[in-house]
Amino acid sequence: MITVLCGGVGAARFLRALRHATHGGVPVDPETVVGVVNTGDDTVLHGLSISPDLDTITYTLAGAIDPVRGWGLVDETWVAMGALERYAAVRPPGSTAAPTWFNLGDRDLATHFYRTARLAEGATLTEVTAEIGRAWQLPERLIPMSDDRVSTLVELDDGRTVSFQEYFVQLRHGVPVRSVTFDGAASARLQPSAADAITRAEVVVVAPSNPLVSIGPLRALDGFDDLLAARRDSVVAVSPIVGGVALKGPADRMLVELGHEPTVVGVARLYRDLAGTLVIDPADAHLADEVAATGMRCVVQPSVMSDPVVAGALATTVLAAG
Amino acid sequence: MITVLCGGVGAARFLRALRHATHGGVPVDPETVVGVVNTGDDTVLHGLSISPDLDTITYTLAGAIDPVRGWGLVDETWVAMGALERYAAVRPPGSTAAPTWFNLGDRDLATHFYRTARLAEGATLTEVTAEIGRAWQLPERLIPMSDDRVSTLVELDDGRTVSFQEYFVQLRHGVPVRSVTFDGAASARLQPSAADAITRAEVVVVAPSNPLVSIGPLRALDGFDDLLAARRDSVVAVSPIVGGVALKGPADRMLVELGHEPTVVGVARLYRDLAGTLVIDPADAHLADEVAATGMRCVVQPSVMSDPVVAGALATTVLAAG
Repeated sequence: MITVLCGGVGAARFLRALRHATHGGVPVDPETVVGVVNTGDDTVLHGLSISPDLDTITYTLAGAIDPVRGWGLVDETWVAMGALERYAAVRPPGSTAAPTWFNLGDRDLATHFYRTARLAEGATLTEVTAEIGRAWQLPERLIPMSDDRVSTLVELDDGRTVSFQEYFVQLRHGVPVRSVTFDGAASARLQPSAADAITRAEVVVVAPSNPLVSIGPLRALDGFDDLLAARRDSVVAVSPIVGGVALKGPADRMLVELGHEPTVVGVARLYRDLAGTLVIDPADAHLADEVAATGMRCVVQPSVMSDPVVAGALATTVLAAG
Repeated sequence: MITVLCGGVGAARFLRALRHATHGGVPVDPETVVGVVNTGDDTVLHGLSISPDLDTITYTLAGAIDPVRGWGLVDETWVAMGALERYAAVRPPGSTAAPTWFNLGDRDLATHFYRTARLAEGATLTEVTAEIGRAWQLPERLIPMSDDRVSTLVELDDGRTVSFQEYFVQLRHGVPVRSVTFDGAASARLQPSAADAITRAEVVVVAPSNPLVSIGPLRALDGFDDLLAARRDSVVAVSPIVGGVALKGPADRMLVELGHEPTVVGVARLYRDLAGTLVIDPADAHLADEVAATGMRCVVQPSVMSDPVVAGALATTVLAAG
């Protein structure tokens, strides 16, 4: 079993890369791959339960992700969103109904409809996620980090506290951040099957996701860090920072704003207690010694998953390092 | 003020007809028209609050109803519904998630999104309905019969009890009915502004809607019948039965199944305590004396609202009768 700790886009691409990887000289069987996925970004809009990271991974692995946007479905239409403008124009002051800043495509809506209806029937998010995986015929197993609600909250420099989606989508992650907290994490339980997958995997991979807001929510769950620390030698992290910048999203700026170094060294300092190895891109090879000085083994390997060959080689290297 | 007691399609067409009517020789000002609308058909699907009769009336008055189907929006697309099939195929036994029997068009979804979000914010259905009316620039005022949940339940001859929408849409009202009940009606309150509109109107019209499942839920509310009885002389009902058949829906069969005569006489017997006048179509002129024998004044007027001239003349006659 190979277990991958996941945020959204970077994790989705890494999971896909595992389909082109070998482990011990043998092609990886995707049925042995488990993704434990961040749900701190989850939100409710229009009464619908939305799990952005789970959906990004599902759609990516199904080959249905829009390759240009990197989120949502390919060949998507936006009729419902367009029709919402009429209502946004009449909502009273103080209301946030008819939000038009969070785009939900018409095909994508079906996923939220199903999730919402199943949760209302009493199914757990873990159960619904497995069903959605079957609907898309995914061989990999995706597990939400928790069946309990954890909400990533972002405190902005102007003093406002907003949900992750408001920060990330509505404000286009263009405003300085003062702190990040995970509401509900103190009482939320790491999904037992996720805990099991972390414990039992041959290799655990920390995907190239934002360490603070994608992997951060998992780490906020009681016992999570301890599970990794207990098997640190076979935990491999892939740096989401290449050449001092985030491949996707605001990880680089956010690292600075929250007092970390926006480099692979900063990433190493965040992960050194949990992971024995950090994989960095050749662009950062000059920092390999500094990474090693944090106590992590440092492996240099092209990590920009621009094509299946590079991605597969990265995944193969990661598994070998574990 | 003219107050119309409303189900769905028949009521929508009558309200529209009032725009082409005169009262006391003066064109009716649609801003003086109030529709009190059945919400017994309301349902929750995919977590969304759906009010079919309110929406049918809104879309009809907005000129946006699909003229062929008679429900939903014109130029509608069905992408979300199509995408739902994938999930219907994986839902576990016992689950009713991803229902594909109730069609929700993509544009139409925006209405349910807005209603659901506003109700979640604590707005009343009355408030949301007014906002939706503004969004469509309706001069008429629509009021749900109650802000409390009332659910029309249909007991079938085979012993099953289903929601109105399951009976009407999923089973295509093709199965015999044993009884109809209105769950929640005993504790639901007639919307005060609706009660006021019934009391203060110059004329109250019972629209040509199903007497049992469209007007029935209003009548199940405490005090509703009394309000009408107190002003019976200026209450005018329009028969939804013409020549022994319902213009739309299962009213004719349902009347028989529930022990009523499927004629204008049967309608008169249901309404005689509430309304002073019944308007019937010339097709039923031979039953005018039988209607009169129930104690109602009987007015014969073409009532199939096939074009604006006929519809306007009907509405003018109805108002004159009140």
